[in-house]
Amino acid sequence: MTDPPIGDTVATLGERALIDRIRARTPAPPDWVPVAIGDDAAVVVPERNALDVVTTDALVEGVHFDCSFVPPGAIGHRALAANLSDLAAMGARPRAAVLSLGLPDRLKVAEFDAIIDGLLALGSTHGVVLVGGNIARSPGPLFVDITLLGSVQKRRILRRGGARPGDVLYVSGVVGSAAAGLEYCRAHPAEALRVGRGADPADRPLESAVDRFLYPDPRIRLGWTLARNRAARACVDLSDGLADAVHQLAAAGRVGAIVESDRVPIDPDVRRWFERDGRDPVLAAVTGGDDYELLFAMPARHLRLLEDVARRVGRLPLTRIGTVTRDPRVVLRRDDRDEPLPRGFTHFR
Amino acid sequence: MTDPPIGDTVATLGERALIDRIRARTPAPPDWVPVAIGDDAAVVVPERNALDVVTTDALVEGVHFDCSFVPPGAIGHRALAANLSDLAAMGARPRAAVLSLGLPDRLKVAEFDAIIDGLLALGSTHGVVLVGGNIARSPGPLFVDITLLGSVQKRRILRRGGARPGDVLYVSGVVGSAAAGLEYCRAHPAEALRVGRGADPADRPLESAVDRFLYPDPRIRLGWTLARNRAARACVDLSDGLADAVHQLAAAGRVGAIVESDRVPIDPDVRRWFERDGRDPVLAAVTGGDDYELLFAMPARHLRLLEDVARRVGRLPLTRIGTVTRDPRVVLRRDDRDEPLPRGFTHFR
Repeated sequence: MTDPPIGDTVATLGERALIDRIRARTPAPPDWVPVAIGDDAAVVVPERNALDVVTTDALVEGVHFDCSFVPPGAIGHRALAANLSDLAAMGARPRAAVLSLGLPDRLKVAEFDAIIDGLLALGSTHGVVLVGGNIARSPGPLFVDITLLGSVQKRRILRRGGARPGDVLYVSGVVGSAAAGLEYCRAHPAEALRVGRGADPADRPLESAVDRFLYPDPRIRLGWTLARNRAARACVDLSDGLADAVHQLAAAGRVGAIVESDRVPIDPDVRRWFERDGRDPVLAAVTGGDDYELLFAMPARHLRLLEDVARRVGRLPLTRIGTVTRDPRVVLRRDDRDEPLPRGFTHFR
Repeated sequence: MTDPPIGDTVATLGERALIDRIRARTPAPPDWVPVAIGDDAAVVVPERNALDVVTTDALVEGVHFDCSFVPPGAIGHRALAANLSDLAAMGARPRAAVLSLGLPDRLKVAEFDAIIDGLLALGSTHGVVLVGGNIARSPGPLFVDITLLGSVQKRRILRRGGARPGDVLYVSGVVGSAAAGLEYCRAHPAEALRVGRGADPADRPLESAVDRFLYPDPRIRLGWTLARNRAARACVDLSDGLADAVHQLAAAGRVGAIVESDRVPIDPDVRRWFERDGRDPVLAAVTGGDDYELLFAMPARHLRLLEDVARRVGRLPLTRIGTVTRDPRVVLRRDDRDEPLPRGFTHFR
């Protein structure tokens, strides 16, 4: 493949040449992918004694990301991360992805390459093979749509429904960091583009939040471990924020929930960031989107199982934030005063 | 579900309400879909002793369709048909689809419903279950992106490569009708919207071409039958036109091909339509896109097998149009004068 002049746009190359660039970046497929990129469809050998799990998620420019502060590598990373997070919430292992791109003519070939590289780098961390896709021209925004296939054993499927009154609610990691990171990027777009992966968080207080916004780390290992030892009874990911996730889990299980305000895990720098604007930091954190953590409900007697899970997921904190109730209301409890938990974040409206 | 006022747009409803509308239109999932729409991901039981086949294809407004003459039902139909055609070319049976939509705020709820209905109607004809999806806002064009899963037995996979010198080339159906139908729609947008499915072709000469453009009939049964009795050695679909398909098949098999100009099957009305503008009707037909027919290469000695295939696919014509050659050139032969077969149609440039 000849390198096109720096600054060339995708329109000058066309679909076939772009597919060739993707193929050149993709390692040789494993035996379980007998037909990969380049035929009418891909062929994948299903995992033995397991079920297929499938999810799809799209990132649209101007809705889910802003090119003025989200570098192309982060676009590819985040598009795959959103899908990985869905599989994590099902207790599934990711296996194969197909990629559908809508490209504006103005997109530079170097940006296209960086999107693909960002996607493939995260994919290789999780054993995901890019098996096929489609490239279309977009007369409007850039969009990156991924469908991810995974596998799960029949008895290990983690669903949204299934939480029962008395169960305890846990969340992984911290909440609100991605939203604070996004706000920081909007306020300092030029600076955001300079923030590299793995930059030292001590340098600038919000750097770790910006990194979490740009390069979320989906909780595949946690979901899989929760499913394997059957610690959790219900699970959902936090793509639209913690408040939304609690509502989803409650609705699917036909139960209610109490979230204890002072237990919500928020990074101290992020808390200060939200407080700076006079906002309630807990409300800001629980309604912020793009935290790809997991929320799960577990019988209180499973604490030993959870300790085992915690050991296996290493440094990732698992925080008890509340309780599942028979009362169908979903509330935020502050010093024994309950208020409705807001609905949270939505990209659509 | 309460019906929204006629003329309401999707922006007034939001993502959750739209997903509810899709669920309300979707029949209860079969046993092999234990988790369908409404969780973080769908779960599909793989078919016994078969491999998974996966493909993705997107339709983008302003690139693949024009809302001024493509009714919303046809948008849903065509988005699924493009994917079904890819599976047909692999010899696979379709099973499950996930749908990713990018919706402009101006889209009416009634149009949204019609897109879904068009998709589901074609899906039910082919046993496809809609198992999940994603709805995003689009600040630009409407896009409809589908990923389709199917199954194929290991020894029955039909690939693009595999054609050998001396093989004969066949194409199903007629070529160029969708392109002529598109041209007719562009010339008479108001009339195109009135053309219903199954209108009597005798009424207006181009009506059947318009119907083929708006509601293509992917050749699932043909692909599956060709794969099952191993008549064909290589197969590709005609989504980007016959000329492109021949080039793809030749490149994948590292062979050349001769297409005989006077054997290319063109509907007489379509031929007259192309001739009206002083164009060469064969060149217009072979470079036109959106014909979801199949091109396949077969050893000449498989004629008996092909007769069996022809019986099983009913009225669909299968026409011998040329030969696979050792000479790597891909040519169109007219009265013993060979000329390069054009590259054909591309949406991208």
